Amino acid sequence: MAKKNRQAEPAPVPQPLSELLRLPAGAVHLGGTDTASTVGFSGGKTEAPARTAALEPELSDLQERLYAAGRAGEAGAPKVLVVLQGMDTSGKGGVIRHAIGMVDPQGVKIKAFKAPTEEERAHPYLWRIERELPPPGVIGIFDRSHYEDVLTVRVNSLVKESVWEKRYDEINAWEDQLVASGTTTIKCFLHISSAEQKARLAARLDDPTKFWKYNPGDVDERSKWLAYVEAYEAVLERCSTQRAPWFVVPSDRKWYRNWAVAQLLVEHLRGLDLPWPPAGFDVEAEKVRLAAT
Amino acid sequence: MAKKNRQAEPAPVPQPLSELLRLPAGAVHLGGTDTASTVGFSGGKTEAPARTAALEPELSDLQERLYAAGRAGEAGAPKVLVVLQGMDTSGKGGVIRHAIGMVDPQGVKIKAFKAPTEEERAHPYLWRIERELPPPGVIGIFDRSHYEDVLTVRVNSLVKESVWEKRYDEINAWEDQLVASGTTTIKCFLHISSAEQKARLAARLDDPTKFWKYNPGDVDERSKWLAYVEAYEAVLERCSTQRAPWFVVPSDRKWYRNWAVAQLLVEHLRGLDLPWPPAGFDVEAEKVRLAAT
Repeated sequence: MAKKNRQAEPAPVPQPLSELLRLPAGAVHLGGTDTASTVGFSGGKTEAPARTAALEPELSDLQERLYAAGRAGEAGAPKVLVVLQGMDTSGKGGVIRHAIGMVDPQGVKIKAFKAPTEEERAHPYLWRIERELPPPGVIGIFDRSHYEDVLTVRVNSLVKESVWEKRYDEINAWEDQLVASGTTTIKCFLHISSAEQKARLAARLDDPTKFWKYNPGDVDERSKWLAYVEAYEAVLERCSTQRAPWFVVPSDRKWYRNWAVAQLLVEHLRGLDLPWPPAGFDVEAEKVRLAAT
Repeated sequence: MAKKNRQAEPAPVPQPLSELLRLPAGAVHLGGTDTASTVGFSGGKTEAPARTAALEPELSDLQERLYAAGRAGEAGAPKVLVVLQGMDTSGKGGVIRHAIGMVDPQGVKIKAFKAPTEEERAHPYLWRIERELPPPGVIGIFDRSHYEDVLTVRVNSLVKESVWEKRYDEINAWEDQLVASGTTTIKCFLHISSAEQKARLAARLDDPTKFWKYNPGDVDERSKWLAYVEAYEAVLERCSTQRAPWFVVPSDRKWYRNWAVAQLLVEHLRGLDLPWPPAGFDVEAEKVRLAAT
């Protein structure tokens, strides 16, 4: 018997979240965006864990179809790439733990991009990114990404303006090719307020089980908050394309953020409309062979 | 406030499962081992999902301590390596999905070893294994491993007996070094009966959503069942050392198998007795710096 598709439909979202969070065209003013919004979620913190967990059966079914397509050996099988960007403490790690953590780890490839190594710096900035792209059937997760090359690089003047200025168009062209070759992108900007970041950093200093998450450099970066906002606005304005749009995920509420990214993933996987791969062998003949053992 | 350690203690296991499943010294006769046993588990299939899920809070806490130790930058931070071996359909993938899937994917590195590539064959057999070992703070999962070099290689005579015969000692010496350099190994043999394998293969042929998991080569391998049993007995007899023992996990019951591997992981992580890393900075000074932003 075939498993029924979408057997465990969670509480319906009236309008797809991908439409609600997709960045509209035009100038971006992050200051005017509510970081504590829970748009698209009917309910509050109490309902969130169960509502997020309710996505798991469908997510699991959809991911297995994707993985099956990849295993069936079609080089043209789809790939999915989730890009997570956001200020320090915005919850990139939390999203991976709580939302991506619901997916079979065999079908997920996670890469956290740190400051580039000497070898990486000897190559064009997209070189190290290319090498971490998900193979067919796999969901890739980028914790930071090529966008750092127009974010931290711009804010800290690590290259000349004439260099980073060209990168927005380069990134758009590169992502366009990526999507054309069968990779669905889900670019999520985890949007927190400055006050929320301060509270989260303070919490790390108040709790000895969180000291390891704290880095004095975070306060230095925090002092450049406005420069980062400006750099993020440029990214969102210039690199939210028709084919590879940005989603702005209000992230002051962790429970909403986790649900929202899981929901975005479900919606995008649904959109692939993947059938189970047909048998690449004679089913009845195999039954006979197996019975004879 | 520090999180309390082991706050969500699941139903106690009277004797550590690692003791119950650890292979005793002496000759191994797999035919005499009950593949449907649920040793160490009080209850049945009904209780299993909740009992397994109940391990998650402690597993999560322990894994985060391990990850924190790795992130705190100590090159000497511990590593954990789970080796999964077993006949086709024994559930290596199922264990990764259901047991390892409970762990934060950021702290897990999974590698499925397939038939070696041309490049890999040009190197000694342990070369490709070495490259996939977990870094400090990480739990590595091997879906098949270097043991294939004395299993499928032996059964299918891919090298001369004089070559594979030496490998048992080589593997023991290599694992001894691995453990000495701070890697805890958890080598799990997922033990199923021949009848159970037949039923599982048949189920894949009866369900179009499972065709992609079926490979006609599985029936060919199945016809060599007794040769594989002999090869596994040699592995278990010769490579279950004091420092890197084998655990024989009865795996006819999937729910027991998943619980058992999760329980073994919890017990081994507990054994590391990891404290939260101390602050590598002046906490009070950082509070002042942060408050000023």
